[in-house]
Amino acid sequence: MGSSDQQLLIGFHAVSSALKAAAKDVEWVRIAADSKNKRLMELESRAHGSGIKVLKTTARELDKLSGQQRHQGVVAGFTASNIAAEGRLTAFLDAIEGTPLILVLDGVQDPHNLGACLRTADAAGVNLVVICKDRSAGITPVVRRAASGAAETLAVIQATNLARVLRTLKKRGIWLAGTSDEAGDSLYSTDLTGPLALVMGNEGSGLRLLTSELCDYLVSIPMAGQVESLNVSVATGVCLFEINRQRKIS
Amino acid sequence: MGSSDQQLLIGFHAVSSALKAAAKDVEWVRIAADSKNKRLMELESRAHGSGIKVLKTTARELDKLSGQQRHQGVVAGFTASNIAAEGRLTAFLDAIEGTPLILVLDGVQDPHNLGACLRTADAAGVNLVVICKDRSAGITPVVRRAASGAAETLAVIQATNLARVLRTLKKRGIWLAGTSDEAGDSLYSTDLTGPLALVMGNEGSGLRLLTSELCDYLVSIPMAGQVESLNVSVATGVCLFEINRQRKIS
Repeated sequence: MGSSDQQLLIGFHAVSSALKAAAKDVEWVRIAADSKNKRLMELESRAHGSGIKVLKTTARELDKLSGQQRHQGVVAGFTASNIAAEGRLTAFLDAIEGTPLILVLDGVQDPHNLGACLRTADAAGVNLVVICKDRSAGITPVVRRAASGAAETLAVIQATNLARVLRTLKKRGIWLAGTSDEAGDSLYSTDLTGPLALVMGNEGSGLRLLTSELCDYLVSIPMAGQVESLNVSVATGVCLFEINRQRKIS
Repeated sequence: MGSSDQQLLIGFHAVSSALKAAAKDVEWVRIAADSKNKRLMELESRAHGSGIKVLKTTARELDKLSGQQRHQGVVAGFTASNIAAEGRLTAFLDAIEGTPLILVLDGVQDPHNLGACLRTADAAGVNLVVICKDRSAGITPVVRRAASGAAETLAVIQATNLARVLRTLKKRGIWLAGTSDEAGDSLYSTDLTGPLALVMGNEGSGLRLLTSELCDYLVSIPMAGQVESLNVSVATGVCLFEINRQRKIS
């Protein structure tokens, strides 16, 4: 896939998840040469088993590669075939089996929030996540860590023109459900069982006007307390699992 | 309330939320003497309006009080009457109107997660949150910030003996619903409309054995993807809003 770049996976958990879920995308693994750590040895033999090149490296070199991140004795080079530019949208949509469930993030900027949204999307069986290339956090090591393995497997489109992506989704018969604190319709009184893209706004300012105008409907989560909104990953979870609940009983 | 200590609220948002939601618990406000900032001036007049002592302070003194936190020209002293030791449990329970909805966090350690759980609990109308004093993050400034104002208003018990608290809840006719990845019953096939305490485990290891044995039933969130679990605040949100949905239609 021409549009994807090699990324660095840092630390045991990130490398281990990638080897489990997407070994074909792991290009090489570098392990601390002097390590006697048992789980690193297991990881090494798993990499060998998948035909991946394993390089013994000094701790110092690992430090240099990892920058500020804790590497725990292992890093890996990863070509993320699951993360692609907007040109791959149609191919990704064609690959969806069953009723599409898509998550669109209109500018989630905090890397922990973005990672938690990806983790939540994967747990809910989302087929595709669309993020804005310019207004979002990139898929950085911090995002990957917060995503607990989801960033290595979930299909993600980094859109340069979100409005164009949304129009493409509409043309393919996918409904756009935006979330807004001010929406009159409750999540729970809306039929969410059809082909659907759930559109979540930015942490501070919510959906942009253009984005919300493109949505077929807007829904809100009924709030009972004093706080004005939920964390974006929590709101994403509440909405996605309600969609799944409705689909199961319909 | 003898068991509560004075806490420091740091930064515009924390002080502003406290003045709005719990002005009676704000003991004093310190504002940068040289500030011409309009929202700080509004905050000052709001504090005056509630009869709270406002002290003009040098930026340097604010830096000293705040340590590493960004203070944005304002800090406040706050006696959290909403946060109490286990001895206040019965009083807090007596104050609940309607069908109780309680959240028990069995050792949530990351302050961002704890804050997000409090924010979520408030949004879902939870009456009381129980946290473990020894196994949880304390209610620190980082927690307060992530809680978006919920930490200043939500009733919180810091339990020294969680098992004892759970037994007290049971004696009062409150059902204990634990969450577990391995539970056979889905959240969605369980009747959650009665007086209920939702019991969430630690981020890494879930519920402790003793805690799960005290639960009346265990429920799981149906997972569709590759990740093994949700972030604890997301799982809390999914469960609490499903409880609210069931209660509304029952």
